[in-house]
Amino acid sequence: MGMRNGAVRGLLLVRGGTVVTAQASLRVDVLCGGVGEILTTGPDLEVPMGCTVVDAGGLLVLPGGVDPHTAIGADESGFERTVEALAGGTTTILDTMHPHGGTLGAAWRAWWHAAERSHVDVGLHMALPDAGARVLRDMEVLVERRGVNAFHLSMADGLSDRAILQLAGHAAGCGALCRIEAQNAQAVAYLREELAQAGITGAESCLLAAPPAVEAEATHRAIMLAGLQGAPVHIGPVSTTGAITCLSAARLDGQRVAAHVLAPHLVVDEAVYDVGGDAPSGSCITDPCMTLPPFRDGTHRRALWGALAAGTIGMVASGFRPPGQPGNGPAGGLAGRMRAVWQHGVQAGLLSAGEFVAVTAQAAACAFNIYPRKGAIMPGADADLVLWDPDALETCPHGPDTPYGGITLGGRAVHVIRGGVTVWKDNRLYGDGRGVHVPCPAFRSGLSADMRQAARLSVRQDGM
Amino acid sequence: MGMRNGAVRGLLLVRGGTVVTAQASLRVDVLCGGVGEILTTGPDLEVPMGCTVVDAGGLLVLPGGVDPHTAIGADESGFERTVEALAGGTTTILDTMHPHGGTLGAAWRAWWHAAERSHVDVGLHMALPDAGARVLRDMEVLVERRGVNAFHLSMADGLSDRAILQLAGHAAGCGALCRIEAQNAQAVAYLREELAQAGITGAESCLLAAPPAVEAEATHRAIMLAGLQGAPVHIGPVSTTGAITCLSAARLDGQRVAAHVLAPHLVVDEAVYDVGGDAPSGSCITDPCMTLPPFRDGTHRRALWGALAAGTIGMVASGFRPPGQPGNGPAGGLAGRMRAVWQHGVQAGLLSAGEFVAVTAQAAACAFNIYPRKGAIMPGADADLVLWDPDALETCPHGPDTPYGGITLGGRAVHVIRGGVTVWKDNRLYGDGRGVHVPCPAFRSGLSADMRQAARLSVRQDGM
Amino acid sequence: MGMRNGAVRGLLLVRGGTVVTAQASLRVDVLCGGVGEILTTGPDLEVPMGCTVVDAGGLLVLPGGVDPHTAIGADESGFERTVEALAGGTTTILDTMHPHGGTLGAAWRAWWHAAERSHVDVGLHMALPDAGARVLRDMEVLVERRGVNAFHLSMADGLSDRAILQLAGHAAGCGALCRIEAQNAQAVAYLREELAQAGITGAESCLLAAPPAVEAEATHRAIMLAGLQGAPVHIGPVSTTGAITCLSAARLDGQRVAAHVLAPHLVVDEAVYDVGGDAPSGSCITDPCMTLPPFRDGTHRRALWGALAAGTIGMVASGFRPPGQPGNGPAGGLAGRMRAVWQHGVQAGLLSAGEFVAVTAQAAACAFNIYPRKGAIMPGADADLVLWDPDALETCPHGPDTPYGGITLGGRAVHVIRGGVTVWKDNRLYGDGRGVHVPCPAFRSGLSADMRQAARLSVRQDGM
Amino acid sequence: MGMRNGAVRGLLLVRGGTVVTAQASLRVDVLCGGVGEILTTGPDLEVPMGCTVVDAGGLLVLPGGVDPHTAIGADESGFERTVEALAGGTTTILDTMHPHGGTLGAAWRAWWHAAERSHVDVGLHMALPDAGARVLRDMEVLVERRGVNAFHLSMADGLSDRAILQLAGHAAGCGALCRIEAQNAQAVAYLREELAQAGITGAESCLLAAPPAVEAEATHRAIMLAGLQGAPVHIGPVSTTGAITCLSAARLDGQRVAAHVLAPHLVVDEAVYDVGGDAPSGSCITDPCMTLPPFRDGTHRRALWGALAAGTIGMVASGFRPPGQPGNGPAGGLAGRMRAVWQHGVQAGLLSAGEFVAVTAQAAACAFNIYPRKGAIMPGADADLVLWDPDALETCPHGPDTPYGGITLGGRAVHVIRGGVTVWKDNRLYGDGRGVHVPCPAFRSGLSADMRQAARLSVRQDGM
Repeated sequence: MGMRNGAVRGLLLVRGGTVVTAQASLRVDVLCGGVGEILTTGPDLEVPMGCTVVDAGGLLVLPGGVDPHTAIGADESGFERTVEALAGGTTTILDTMHPHGGTLGAAWRAWWHAAERSHVDVGLHMALPDAGARVLRDMEVLVERRGVNAFHLSMADGLSDRAILQLAGHAAGCGALCRIEAQNAQAVAYLREELAQAGITGAESCLLAAPPAVEAEATHRAIMLAGLQGAPVHIGPVSTTGAITCLSAARLDGQRVAAHVLAPHLVVDEAVYDVGGDAPSGSCITDPCMTLPPFRDGTHRRALWGALAAGTIGMVASGFRPPGQPGNGPAGGLAGRMRAVWQHGVQAGLLSAGEFVAVTAQAAACAFNIYPRKGAIMPGADADLVLWDPDALETCPHGPDTPYGGITLGGRAVHVIRGGVTVWKDNRLYGDGRGVHVPCPAFRSGLSADMRQAARLSVRQDGM
Repeated sequence: MGMRNGAVRGLLLVRGGTVVTAQASLRVDVLCGGVGEILTTGPDLEVPMGCTVVDAGGLLVLPGGVDPHTAIGADESGFERTVEALAGGTTTILDTMHPHGGTLGAAWRAWWHAAERSHVDVGLHMALPDAGARVLRDMEVLVERRGVNAFHLSMADGLSDRAILQLAGHAAGCGALCRIEAQNAQAVAYLREELAQAGITGAESCLLAAPPAVEAEATHRAIMLAGLQGAPVHIGPVSTTGAITCLSAARLDGQRVAAHVLAPHLVVDEAVYDVGGDAPSGSCITDPCMTLPPFRDGTHRRALWGALAAGTIGMVASGFRPPGQPGNGPAGGLAGRMRAVWQHGVQAGLLSAGEFVAVTAQAAACAFNIYPRKGAIMPGADADLVLWDPDALETCPHGPDTPYGGITLGGRAVHVIRGGVTVWKDNRLYGDGRGVHVPCPAFRSGLSADMRQAARLSVRQDGM
Repeated sequence: MGMRNGAVRGLLLVRGGTVVTAQASLRVDVLCGGVGEILTTGPDLEVPMGCTVVDAGGLLVLPGGVDPHTAIGADESGFERTVEALAGGTTTILDTMHPHGGTLGAAWRAWWHAAERSHVDVGLHMALPDAGARVLRDMEVLVERRGVNAFHLSMADGLSDRAILQLAGHAAGCGALCRIEAQNAQAVAYLREELAQAGITGAESCLLAAPPAVEAEATHRAIMLAGLQGAPVHIGPVSTTGAITCLSAARLDGQRVAAHVLAPHLVVDEAVYDVGGDAPSGSCITDPCMTLPPFRDGTHRRALWGALAAGTIGMVASGFRPPGQPGNGPAGGLAGRMRAVWQHGVQAGLLSAGEFVAVTAQAAACAFNIYPRKGAIMPGADADLVLWDPDALETCPHGPDTPYGGITLGGRAVHVIRGGVTVWKDNRLYGDGRGVHVPCPAFRSGLSADMRQAARLSVRQDGM
Repeated sequence: MGMRNGAVRGLLLVRGGTVVTAQASLRVDVLCGGVGEILTTGPDLEVPMGCTVVDAGGLLVLPGGVDPHTAIGADESGFERTVEALAGGTTTILDTMHPHGGTLGAAWRAWWHAAERSHVDVGLHMALPDAGARVLRDMEVLVERRGVNAFHLSMADGLSDRAILQLAGHAAGCGALCRIEAQNAQAVAYLREELAQAGITGAESCLLAAPPAVEAEATHRAIMLAGLQGAPVHIGPVSTTGAITCLSAARLDGQRVAAHVLAPHLVVDEAVYDVGGDAPSGSCITDPCMTLPPFRDGTHRRALWGALAAGTIGMVASGFRPPGQPGNGPAGGLAGRMRAVWQHGVQAGLLSAGEFVAVTAQAAACAFNIYPRKGAIMPGADADLVLWDPDALETCPHGPDTPYGGITLGGRAVHVIRGGVTVWKDNRLYGDGRGVHVPCPAFRSGLSADMRQAARLSVRQDGM
């Protein structure tokens, strides 16, 4: 994968739009240039000589979206599909590498190669299989030399509490964050077997094998384990009221707990699983909805929106995996992430436009230490801009490639600029440029020994 | 151990006291006789011919205490110590058998033999080591033939989530209850190792290796696992606000969750562990306080009292183990259970006298299906009565045999009747009788398939 | 109204049934006699000479129901309708007197006269209009001489916080309890006006003018005010999750807070108000549903059932007012109280039979200090017994006289005995006897100065 | 008071510092100029000709603090004291005007005149005495013509629920926010009278007359009332765990609820009130601690810090009133606001430096719609900068002028720039410039009719 190089690009002025950031909406212009960064912002900027002018009249100008959780695989064709991210207004993804039985180093190399095909910029997280000595050593290398500052620990795949304790402690010592996929693996497996014995193996088993309490429990446990190590922790994907209750309690208790939700969980109802329905077992839904956690009912979805508005859940990911590939996330859906949130969040009056930018871009950038390079519109930031038509509206067709079938999506990325260059316009790709690697720097100051110690004592003695 | 036989005993009339039950306080007399049961109650009963009269003037007349959690071991000398239970007003204990690597049947025989030495009546619970086929079969035998209706599952000793699911389901199917000791074993072990590496192995490691969050987490998990099986569950011992929060939420959600606290946890402060103190490591406290969970600070204790008053925690046990024997409970303390609750609960204005009877006798009898034989004062109930001096007051001396060193205890069992016969009076044993076995009948009606199904669906779909 | 007099009645033996109390279910017979009390209970009692035998084979034998909240008015025809209570298994009601601008003494006399027509026994509570000196003085008279131990304070009718503080303190000082109807009167009035301006004055305004948050808020406030005075408090009717959250938190905090729900709120959905429906405004529902609080949706109802099972809400009332009379409760519904709880609680697997007895009889008797005279089956208790067919099932017809139109009701009072005499059988009244007055004694011991002080300090300094 | 005028100032370059904003810490320089705004930021900026250079080496560069709640009075000498705000790093205050029986217009004129003496920029809120027609009309004028976008409603001073409903609705309609001081006035008054009758009138009555539950209750009520109107609401000052619980629940429920805490409440213990102490009544503490709400114990303070870290409470105010003047806030303390938070928040490991900027500057600027003019370091923002020595440490001396007597304060404003001009350096004022008026624009887009309606329905039907 490429790194950002020093090639100077032409000047580009985005004029006449309303710049929306997480903090404010302003009628300012944005001048891009240099090696692909924002040079200045301000009202009614003069047009420098030789500058390309993009008219943003009537449009919102957003920082390019940052999708904090995809699972593309070391798969070139998968990364080719990131063109859909661009089309949806996302210019950066944070993809999770899996060693799949090999070393972390080998996974890194495989991903680095595959990600060359990406149309968006790519930061990389690493899933950890165990807490062996080799893994611990490789974690250090990844943090120090490879720009990896987050590790993925999957309770859903059966990582033990002891391993989580060790990994959370080691990651915090390295200046890295743990992101924990919190589902009780033994309970899910037990229920799957029980359902299989009852002949239920189709889509509905997705829902029945992962009841809400299984997620709430694992979330509570993940938070406790990280807390014992004084390690900040990121939980996700989150889909239930019970998990939100745990997150909120821990945060009020002073613990450092972040979380993300997958966009489809905000808008797709559990009815897609057709439990007890007439459809033949296994045929009632298509692949995109075969996810863990499953989609939930309206009570949980309302709570997820409330948690986004309250900041308890800070960011929205796609959880994208290429259709046909294994994984817990929904197949497809890269293009719909921001549009689902716009339509059912902003247009529904649940989120402000600034909050929309926070949950789709800024928060992820801050959480993974790439702000203000990403997630911001300010001088020095990468010139990743999305010209957004707030009033566009479309119902997503059903299909094997998207979890949004039948769902209304709103807003539209009319024009997308990545690194100061137009890459998407008129509903098609522009140019043949590819995204670059975005190294995620280790957390140094924010994770001082003092802070860890304070958090640790708090959890160890005061409990929740 | 003996069974209650048909030997008819003389009449005995308790006259002039105030009978206190969980529902009401009444100035009535109690006539005992038959084979050791209460014959009638009423105001100013006539004295039958040949009847012994016990004057209860100025005293309260309580149902004999039921201690729902002791861990005596298959140990005759341990059961001899139940004289202390009598002295404290307790006439029935529910002891937990451990197979210790052998079969459940062998454990049953060992306990049956040892319990012959008991001065109080004894019901028996069985700890389960795993969810193997042999264990599952033996559980059925114990329920059907041995009067065992409760099984002890120790997460603290490392029972897996999968095993808990299997055992909870099987127990519910048998008409038995699971009692879960909820502590995260992996976390406690990890912290103990870490402390050991830091040279901390003394009493303070009790406290530091089991922070409150470790109990709250395991409580949440235990409740979830039982809920998936639609199995009622009993959690204990409970020592933290976090666990109480989980219990309360599950109960409000309609799940069947009971709990007990150990009396010492209500009154002993974590200061006994002298963390960071001057005492040489390991010497700062005596054996009675080496417990899991450890004693906690005032915040947790206040919450425990609140949970008792609210009914979220229904009963108070001693957790007694004979000093010098291994186990998680406090050494000693049989005699102080009811007096600690009287002094710091009733005399402190936190509980009414009726609630005192509920938490020290009636609730345990109901929970383990031996009410109204135990825990009640009504015709047909066992004639187990305690004449209680409400105003007695004493500070417990420090010693290796009690966790109550330095704690004020209140009330006093002036006269104790077990099975219609005086067994304790003038601060000494009367007669040479021994307690009998109290079979705990399987739960039939209370645990119908419908009810299990309803609970199960509720948990599986609605979550917490 | 009559008092229970000393007239000795014939012996009556209820034989062959299953006696269900809040603590246990037992196959025992019940012998009634004396001046209308239970003489003895036990298995296979001998039939005394001249004794009437009632065959309870296949039936449950319950303590006569105690309905803790009716609002009949000083109205003879209203009290005649208590025949419906008998038909539904209720043998005691606690009716609330209202001074309606007159003195408390005048209200007492009016109710005493009207209640002579009652077919069930009657205890009386008094609503308080203000905290004036005359009211304070009359409260003392009612407690000391009239058997009134509970006062009704209606926030819904606008009683000020200051008055509640004064009345709660004074009541506690007298040994009486405050029962608070917690709705924010100013908010409800404001919303009603707003709705009226929008032309919405029909049944739907019941629902729209009293959103759930209005009850949760007032419940929080009522608990706080009582807590400041160290006064135990009873909240009711309760209809929302928010109120339950407040009750639960206060109880866990050690405060003495009881509550009741009206039976219709457990089973009737807010859909009856037909908000936005086609029915002409004001005509869409009948009088029985014009209540404050209104009926709620399934989320709230599930929470109410959970709170009953958890003990957070202790008892179920009818809230009955005679159709056509003003008041906040539902019109009609006396006969359906126990049957609604049986069908949708016990038969649905949410409550055990013992819990059914607790919430329909025992808890109210304990709460208002008339246990074990009422709510119990034990020697000395009033011989109020209901022979209950557990399997009966019926759908209540729609009508202006009942809130249960279209709702399935379960169980049936086959034979009702009040004071040792059969009063209802074969679906009709037996004999021409009338109920008597049940004095509710002041709370003396349970409300000691120490306990009040402890509660008070707790609330004042620790908060919730 | 002056308005910002167009006078061009000289260039000023802050070089070599670490710029800290709520989102990130960056080693960039800041060039100020124009009419007092930031011209550009970036690493290693060139020094323009004639530019004054300020060396920030080793220092943090913060946006000037924004204090969202002071109560100076229409008092020139009070505004002169804002020099202390400058000394503590605060460059903008939002002061609350009180009509004190006069019209809102008269209050505006009095404040405008007095605020001319201010050393910091001043935004103005208006306290509302009632919901009369004149007040409603004047609110509109203030919003449209006077730059007032927030109104202060004091439940503590007895504003009725009905008036709050009317004012909250009207304010939202005008595009303004309500800030509610949530204390139950009737309860506080009742307790004060009771204490006075017991001869307790000194400082300890501050504490005893305003127990935590009184604040929690009023917070719950304020949120409910605002929710009924679909009006966003700001609660403050907040001092208790109970209030935090209400805030968190409402936010998770999707309601728009912001809050502030006063800095002294974060660090001063209730022990200052010397309840039951030896000091003569009334003399035990000095004026600065005579506040409503009073200072609280460690449990509440820990919760306040947790709520700040979790974002449930978004901002920290001083609550300053000039010593000797009436009001509910603490006397003095303008200079200690940021230093208290730095020392006990950042240095204690509870907050990051970025969170410090959020709670002391950015959040208040966003909440009152003056971001990014205030609270930001970006081109176009007012050039209000504080050069902060992170390691400074000092114990505040006791005195009648500060609530921080005996408290350690940390950090120090070494150099303060307001509007591009150095105003504080070497521990003294520089120049004779005065602050200007900061109009707070009405909320237009953020408070659309749709959003109000959505919030309103949510609250009215779903409750909490």
